[in-house]
Amino acid sequence: MSEKTTIYDIAKALNITAATVSRALNNNPKISAATKKLVMETAAKMNYKQNRLALALKSGKSNNVGVIVPYIDRNFFSAIIRGIEEELYPLGYHVIICQTHEQESTEIDNINALLNAQVDGILMSVSKLTTQTDHFEYVLEKNVPLVFFDRKKDLKGVSTVTIDDFEGGYRATKHLIDQGCKRIAHLSGDWSLEIYKNRYEGYKKALTDHGIALKKEYVIKTKSDIRAGQKASEKLLMLPEPPDAIFSSSDYVALGAIQQLKKHGIKIPTEFCVVGFSNEPFTKFLELSMTTVDQSPVEMGKMAAKVFLEQVKDSNVKIEKKVVLSPTLKIRMSSVK
Amino acid sequence: MSEKTTIYDIAKALNITAATVSRALNNNPKISAATKKLVMETAAKMNYKQNRLALALKSGKSNNVGVIVPYIDRNFFSAIIRGIEEELYPLGYHVIICQTHEQESTEIDNINALLNAQVDGILMSVSKLTTQTDHFEYVLEKNVPLVFFDRKKDLKGVSTVTIDDFEGGYRATKHLIDQGCKRIAHLSGDWSLEIYKNRYEGYKKALTDHGIALKKEYVIKTKSDIRAGQKASEKLLMLPEPPDAIFSSSDYVALGAIQQLKKHGIKIPTEFCVVGFSNEPFTKFLELSMTTVDQSPVEMGKMAAKVFLEQVKDSNVKIEKKVVLSPTLKIRMSSVK
Repeated sequence: MSEKTTIYDIAKALNITAATVSRALNNNPKISAATKKLVMETAAKMNYKQNRLALALKSGKSNNVGVIVPYIDRNFFSAIIRGIEEELYPLGYHVIICQTHEQESTEIDNINALLNAQVDGILMSVSKLTTQTDHFEYVLEKNVPLVFFDRKKDLKGVSTVTIDDFEGGYRATKHLIDQGCKRIAHLSGDWSLEIYKNRYEGYKKALTDHGIALKKEYVIKTKSDIRAGQKASEKLLMLPEPPDAIFSSSDYVALGAIQQLKKHGIKIPTEFCVVGFSNEPFTKFLELSMTTVDQSPVEMGKMAAKVFLEQVKDSNVKIEKKVVLSPTLKIRMSSVK
Repeated sequence: MSEKTTIYDIAKALNITAATVSRALNNNPKISAATKKLVMETAAKMNYKQNRLALALKSGKSNNVGVIVPYIDRNFFSAIIRGIEEELYPLGYHVIICQTHEQESTEIDNINALLNAQVDGILMSVSKLTTQTDHFEYVLEKNVPLVFFDRKKDLKGVSTVTIDDFEGGYRATKHLIDQGCKRIAHLSGDWSLEIYKNRYEGYKKALTDHGIALKKEYVIKTKSDIRAGQKASEKLLMLPEPPDAIFSSSDYVALGAIQQLKKHGIKIPTEFCVVGFSNEPFTKFLELSMTTVDQSPVEMGKMAAKVFLEQVKDSNVKIEKKVVLSPTLKIRMSSVK
């Protein structure tokens, strides 16, 4: 870790407690003006990077930034948060996190809670079930910068950082074609979310570009869990002409598919190839490691943070930036014949 | 989901926008007193569960509760947060999450950020690298309820919810003895954290109770990652008399051990048994599913929330409650001969 000066170093130098230093920097009324002055001077001398509270006193800002995600425990989202923190923390910003569990009403509550906590900006990924945009407009009215990452709504004045899902779908499908797969099925999500629609479009385009006809019965929309993957692949195997590969829009669904295929004694990858999407950590841990599309979430988080920083730099200028990142295909055992 | 009245229902009933309803409930100055009155009355009539902001206006509380964990993407912690949310959300509380990345300075910043955001309480698991307690005392001085879960410091006036780690270590080790394992090694963590010390004590007691001598060279302290598990197990295999089982204080370390054992062509579970700790989701997904100790984190979160609620119910009474939950052994393939 960095060897930056901490409040403990200042406390030691002045022979007072760290709590007193913190309170002095925090402008606590219990601390005398003389002590405050002493602490501030020592902090400056020791090249102490003023924390957000001290900064807040100067700037009238809280230096808290709110991040809203559907679930904190999906690696994709926690890695984005890591990226945001890595970018903002050294600048004295502090990240406060809320999760929506994909509920629009919780999303509204989250936004109210964060505005209530006086955040300087909100960086978020829209919940699957969100249909309204009132609550986003409310944030903009309050002049709080709003940045969407991964899942977005099209709103004037809102910057977005997304991944090229079309390209991800295209590359995954092309890889399966290159492996000699002839009958490639696609397990997709709800198309009211652009990301799933775009992955499907990439899949479709790759097939067309390689002269393979799209078969309607090979495309199934499912939830994003293991059980859904088991059920969908069972359905595919019951077809008169079952597929010989699956490109899934979700790693969890792909895992369910692999489990079901094994139950039927189908050998992966020799008889059947599977590719997932998201590069969840477990895909690497599997004995049969899973090919998947990596969305460089840490990079996405860093980029969202940078876009936010540009916006706060000059609050008179409204920036509307659309950043689209490129995905990477992680080729592993589940798809290499 | 529940069919509770939302701000949209109120908006529809009054033929105004949801944003206006939200602002009215939020006491926004842009909204006329007449509209506010109308919204409040309609909300009451429709049995609308007032959101935290409305409640805050009445009580002077923010109805935000802060939760601090080392990492949000460890299933154990995200499941605890789920438990806390499940308990508090229906009561109109909102959960704001911060992560420390095990850094004491970040933990201090987190606490300041949450106090700055006017939270009504802080529920947290102490960072591995925390040595001071000043910042906790600062919270108590501010009369903000503080509850520790899983990892704690002994502080007067602070309630704690922990798991019986001794029992977890004991059960895991006894299970290995019951499987006929004779030379059981233990991969542990840093003993400055009670949880690791207690798991080790449970391991030791189980050996003693079954007449097995503790071998010093069978106990290795490691970091909590896969790489550490690989290295530690390599060391164990190089011993003149290598062990025939490992009980690890971490699932990640146990996974590293399994990978290394396989590299040496050692058959699990017939030649060697492995038991982890935490019941991380990947332990179930492995082709060779892993036996592990489940700490019922959702239950732990619910309990932490309940303890917090007892404390806010009557701020005149100082409650210091120590809740200890019992762990469950999840017996899977990696340890059943």
